[in-house]
Amino acid sequence: MSTHATDPDLVAGAAVPPAPTPEEERQIAQLYEDFGQVNLIPLWTQIGELMPMTPQPQAVPHVWRWKTLLPLAARAGDLIPVGRGGERRAIALANPGLGGRPYATPTLWAAIQYLGGQETAPEHRHSQNAFRFVVEGEGVWTVVNGDPVAMRRGDFLLTPGWNFHGHHNETDRPMAWIDGLDIPFVHYTDTSFFEFGSDRVTDESTPSVSRSEKLWCHPGLRPLTGLRDTISSPIGAYRWEHTEAALEDQLELERAGHPATVEQGHAAVRYVNPTNGRDVLPTIRAEFHRLRPGARTPTRREVGSSVFQVFDGAGALTVDGDRHLVEKGDMIVVPSWSALALSTDDGLDLFRFGDQPIVESLGLSRIHQEDPRS
Amino acid sequence: MSTHATDPDLVAGAAVPPAPTPEEERQIAQLYEDFGQVNLIPLWTQIGELMPMTPQPQAVPHVWRWKTLLPLAARAGDLIPVGRGGERRAIALANPGLGGRPYATPTLWAAIQYLGGQETAPEHRHSQNAFRFVVEGEGVWTVVNGDPVAMRRGDFLLTPGWNFHGHHNETDRPMAWIDGLDIPFVHYTDTSFFEFGSDRVTDESTPSVSRSEKLWCHPGLRPLTGLRDTISSPIGAYRWEHTEAALEDQLELERAGHPATVEQGHAAVRYVNPTNGRDVLPTIRAEFHRLRPGARTPTRREVGSSVFQVFDGAGALTVDGDRHLVEKGDMIVVPSWSALALSTDDGLDLFRFGDQPIVESLGLSRIHQEDPRS
Amino acid sequence: MSTHATDPDLVAGAAVPPAPTPEEERQIAQLYEDFGQVNLIPLWTQIGELMPMTPQPQAVPHVWRWKTLLPLAARAGDLIPVGRGGERRAIALANPGLGGRPYATPTLWAAIQYLGGQETAPEHRHSQNAFRFVVEGEGVWTVVNGDPVAMRRGDFLLTPGWNFHGHHNETDRPMAWIDGLDIPFVHYTDTSFFEFGSDRVTDESTPSVSRSEKLWCHPGLRPLTGLRDTISSPIGAYRWEHTEAALEDQLELERAGHPATVEQGHAAVRYVNPTNGRDVLPTIRAEFHRLRPGARTPTRREVGSSVFQVFDGAGALTVDGDRHLVEKGDMIVVPSWSALALSTDDGLDLFRFGDQPIVESLGLSRIHQEDPRS
Amino acid sequence: MSTHATDPDLVAGAAVPPAPTPEEERQIAQLYEDFGQVNLIPLWTQIGELMPMTPQPQAVPHVWRWKTLLPLAARAGDLIPVGRGGERRAIALANPGLGGRPYATPTLWAAIQYLGGQETAPEHRHSQNAFRFVVEGEGVWTVVNGDPVAMRRGDFLLTPGWNFHGHHNETDRPMAWIDGLDIPFVHYTDTSFFEFGSDRVTDESTPSVSRSEKLWCHPGLRPLTGLRDTISSPIGAYRWEHTEAALEDQLELERAGHPATVEQGHAAVRYVNPTNGRDVLPTIRAEFHRLRPGARTPTRREVGSSVFQVFDGAGALTVDGDRHLVEKGDMIVVPSWSALALSTDDGLDLFRFGDQPIVESLGLSRIHQEDPRS
Repeated sequence: MSTHATDPDLVAGAAVPPAPTPEEERQIAQLYEDFGQVNLIPLWTQIGELMPMTPQPQAVPHVWRWKTLLPLAARAGDLIPVGRGGERRAIALANPGLGGRPYATPTLWAAIQYLGGQETAPEHRHSQNAFRFVVEGEGVWTVVNGDPVAMRRGDFLLTPGWNFHGHHNETDRPMAWIDGLDIPFVHYTDTSFFEFGSDRVTDESTPSVSRSEKLWCHPGLRPLTGLRDTISSPIGAYRWEHTEAALEDQLELERAGHPATVEQGHAAVRYVNPTNGRDVLPTIRAEFHRLRPGARTPTRREVGSSVFQVFDGAGALTVDGDRHLVEKGDMIVVPSWSALALSTDDGLDLFRFGDQPIVESLGLSRIHQEDPRS
Repeated sequence: MSTHATDPDLVAGAAVPPAPTPEEERQIAQLYEDFGQVNLIPLWTQIGELMPMTPQPQAVPHVWRWKTLLPLAARAGDLIPVGRGGERRAIALANPGLGGRPYATPTLWAAIQYLGGQETAPEHRHSQNAFRFVVEGEGVWTVVNGDPVAMRRGDFLLTPGWNFHGHHNETDRPMAWIDGLDIPFVHYTDTSFFEFGSDRVTDESTPSVSRSEKLWCHPGLRPLTGLRDTISSPIGAYRWEHTEAALEDQLELERAGHPATVEQGHAAVRYVNPTNGRDVLPTIRAEFHRLRPGARTPTRREVGSSVFQVFDGAGALTVDGDRHLVEKGDMIVVPSWSALALSTDDGLDLFRFGDQPIVESLGLSRIHQEDPRS
Repeated sequence: MSTHATDPDLVAGAAVPPAPTPEEERQIAQLYEDFGQVNLIPLWTQIGELMPMTPQPQAVPHVWRWKTLLPLAARAGDLIPVGRGGERRAIALANPGLGGRPYATPTLWAAIQYLGGQETAPEHRHSQNAFRFVVEGEGVWTVVNGDPVAMRRGDFLLTPGWNFHGHHNETDRPMAWIDGLDIPFVHYTDTSFFEFGSDRVTDESTPSVSRSEKLWCHPGLRPLTGLRDTISSPIGAYRWEHTEAALEDQLELERAGHPATVEQGHAAVRYVNPTNGRDVLPTIRAEFHRLRPGARTPTRREVGSSVFQVFDGAGALTVDGDRHLVEKGDMIVVPSWSALALSTDDGLDLFRFGDQPIVESLGLSRIHQEDPRS
Repeated sequence: MSTHATDPDLVAGAAVPPAPTPEEERQIAQLYEDFGQVNLIPLWTQIGELMPMTPQPQAVPHVWRWKTLLPLAARAGDLIPVGRGGERRAIALANPGLGGRPYATPTLWAAIQYLGGQETAPEHRHSQNAFRFVVEGEGVWTVVNGDPVAMRRGDFLLTPGWNFHGHHNETDRPMAWIDGLDIPFVHYTDTSFFEFGSDRVTDESTPSVSRSEKLWCHPGLRPLTGLRDTISSPIGAYRWEHTEAALEDQLELERAGHPATVEQGHAAVRYVNPTNGRDVLPTIRAEFHRLRPGARTPTRREVGSSVFQVFDGAGALTVDGDRHLVEKGDMIVVPSWSALALSTDDGLDLFRFGDQPIVESLGLSRIHQEDPRS
């Protein structure tokens, strides 16, 4: 019988039965073969791997460099048309621990998407929830259920499940951004629905502010026509100007001696659904973190997997003891229950997304902050 | 036996028992006297008044004129000191139907509060939930749990139950505003707790923006230090600039042909608690309505009582068939289930508050929109 | 200026302004008269009564004796017909502190209802929520939305708001029980709707178990046809046999050394809505308490008002220091925030209902248990 | 570019770009190789498999026969000791479509567990949620957090995540039952925590009713000591007598002409958490279905995967057009979105569990009932 590899001593201390005789071994082998014939597998040979003492992710911490991602996306822009069938010129981070699947983590898809000058990605909809985050550039409008949403540096943009959406580039210059989706989770749970829409976007106008923002982006105010809660946020774009102002306000409060930051020098906001104050998407959490020059966080473990992208500045993410230096545009995966600490000498702006809403709503959440003295 | 006065025909149609004989009448009179001796009252003599077919409020629609309220408040400013004991120089609207109690409606308190130049209203806290709305003036800071909140025209300011609060006027000019509280409801339910605080406000600084706004007034963003939901909104001030922008955005969307307004020419927002998207206070709803010149609403009945104050412009509230012309600063009470329509020739901005969260959370809500053809 | 009578010392210590001169007194008197002319009332003369330091209910603790109630109800049975118009032969407890209104507490109606042999109380429905509790007798069926529900000693029966209901006595013997409703609360909030139904009950069959019980009274099981939550419980009757078994099980666990009782010798259950585990009605809580011989509870204060009826045994309710001896059928009102302790020499079974769901859902709840050593 | 294989026509109709030249093909091949070097994968080659038009589960419908399962389990009972390390003598259904993993569906573990006479399975706890269902036999107590729970035919028994539990067989006869857990889901989301407990169960008493039932299994009644909601049900055992009574009551109501069954001849209950009326475990739904002789259901598709075990009788499950005849003890997997119809000639009792709480709480649920005329 196999044991929980993570705690052999405990098992060693138990009353271990006598080793099987050769005849018993033969019978056991036969039994296992008979199990296999009828699609059965015993627990006792699997439990250590199946039910570890603490999470043992197959996904590994890994960094993708923006200076690598962007040129490759540009080459794809030259060679691969965007259009119906392939749908999007998106290139996914494939976590080295996940066996060649295009998954950043077991639950999350993260990709760089690239749209050439004047190109259009056709409309479709799917049960998968999606967002985009813009680390640089502008000129593309994503049209969500007919509402054109301008994309600009620092903006966080939403396409909740089953909303038609397409993108079009109004300029002659290409634009790249990152996509985050729950593709792996939806695939895993066998809940994918997909429908094609218009070959072009249904509204080619280019307003600087979307209709969703006009309805929903006035703080503390809810339109009387929007009193029904929605499982995903109705906001199409969370603008950088608001995110930055929120972070600066927290740091200003900290300087004035008031509680406002997660810890000294560490401001952070969560993007939320204004109809209920909860996560923007039922399966994906998104946050923005700003570390002041010289700041460092304690080491924390959290159930659930995350992906970070550096928005500005430079710093280090120390994951399970390994220090990863990152700078603008770089992306890094932090698997579930990894020990994570952030630090920076000159200041660091980090966008983060993760699958914590899944584990939280199902009662599987745990957070552990390591004792700073140890 | 008395009947439901509102539906005599139905009762008349029923099989009515024979009239009592004189001896029976005597015995009944004796029975009722014996009931009274031991604190009993029969239902059958009371049911028509107690359980009417539709709400029959004792509160009546009534208008208080700003041009009356303000000079009276100023006279009080000359004669009545503000300070510990009386606590506030607030003068309440006493609904003529409510028997001389200082209640705007059975559940709601509405008052004009007046603070002279350089005056301070001392700190206290109470289980009653409170807000303030400013129709004109500025120069006072209300300090809520130590957070100084500037009061300016158009602002909606919160003091949820059991938060210490005081006010101080930094200028030499008086300032007046309206207070809304659930004093009658808390009194009725015997849930009042009250505690004195500092004789002066605990922070006399005069920032233009409160700390609560720095944490909570960035649209769609939630501070990571504020992830626990609160039954009341954590926002100290809902600023006029945001309210006005939200209303203008709705009207602009309407002009562009998109659904955004309650009905043609009628924009409206509800002030909400950003932690859960629900009403700002557990017992009080607050909204702002803007009618374009020429707009008129259908006639609606809604369970729950409301108080309106004209913020700008002029127009009419037709309540149960009576047309009340109102202008800036005027206040009007609309009792439960009254038939209400709004109209304006030149534009009308209306602040509204009501007790609808009480009736909604207890399953007693009903709304009826009358057929516009009738 | 008046002060909070409950805490004069604190106010006395504050900087009291100089007493007004005779001329000022004259001007103040004129000001108050002018206030009255336009329906205004100042806060500062009212605050002590309006916003007390702790709840100061007008309702008083009071006992109604079953041996008084039942004969009076029987006399009404001889003299007063039951039928359309009066609707029910119900006689309400009128709290001596509530000015002659038929209210047990500010929010709650409690009455004895009496139905003679072969009589029928006609069907109607209303927004008021209702229950019945049977301290003795049987033979009446209450028909709720067409579902006949037998009434027997110890049963707790529900008629949530807006369900048609009537009662009919199948026997030649009269039957009496108590009714609990939120009539005062619905009247106060102006949310009453009422509709007449059939002059007789719509189903005169007399099953021993109602259809609602067949669907909903299997522990931990929910019918697949009933997956939508309802604000009130779908259970028509909570049978005595289940209540008694639950209490006995708690006491048995206590004897075996396991945590199960509120405190030593005090078992208690709350009647709940199986669709969500919450109170049976949105405005009314109902519980059953059993005290073993010799048991006594600590003294507790709780916001919200309650009515108790002794179901069996005898004992004492000590309310704000006054000891009330009660026995089978006796009813007693305990106002909000009264200090309450229960005790019994020979055992006491108590049915209790109260308005706590109102104060809890609106964030006004407080409970205080006095230190047993003091 | 690959296309969505499920809808080639739609894609064929789109404006297809010209085929790449040989030089372009070479460059594309080089690009893909460069992608691979840095752990990137394009969407456009994967989208058809990743994001299908409707769920395309890898899991397949499959039947395991009780007459196969039980003898194999008995052979394991002779050869494999139960104890610390292997922890349990459980043999899992390995869905033939899931690549040799011991998973019934992507999210669910289903196994037969076998405990010989006088054997004990030691205590442990884990974040995985578990239940047991007994198709035959008795004599084992499962001890959950120290509460001994008797296991008998027809009982549904819970071990929510992180509760210590062990089993001991009081008799000299072996006993087998099925286990259901969310092991695959917890493994997939990297949320597994595991802790060893006592080598024997901590309470060897053998009461016929558990303490949890004494507190929680009185219909519509909640102990006052259990007013805090829990994410999983506090009930340790849902007894067969209650399940059967609930089913019979539904069928009796149907016979009497009242709505109570899912459809003609099809009674069904869901096991629920009495603290909130929701599913017993945050990740697992459990239900019991009874079909009368001759009954058949319409064909339905539902997102989420299920496992059925026949408790009694015999019948057919038609899954995606294939008819599977099943009888007592047989188990069958129904993958997500499979078209399912049930039918029986002589009556069929079915236990069912599934992962629907996962997809529902994350907004991914869909149900489709096929038109019976088609």
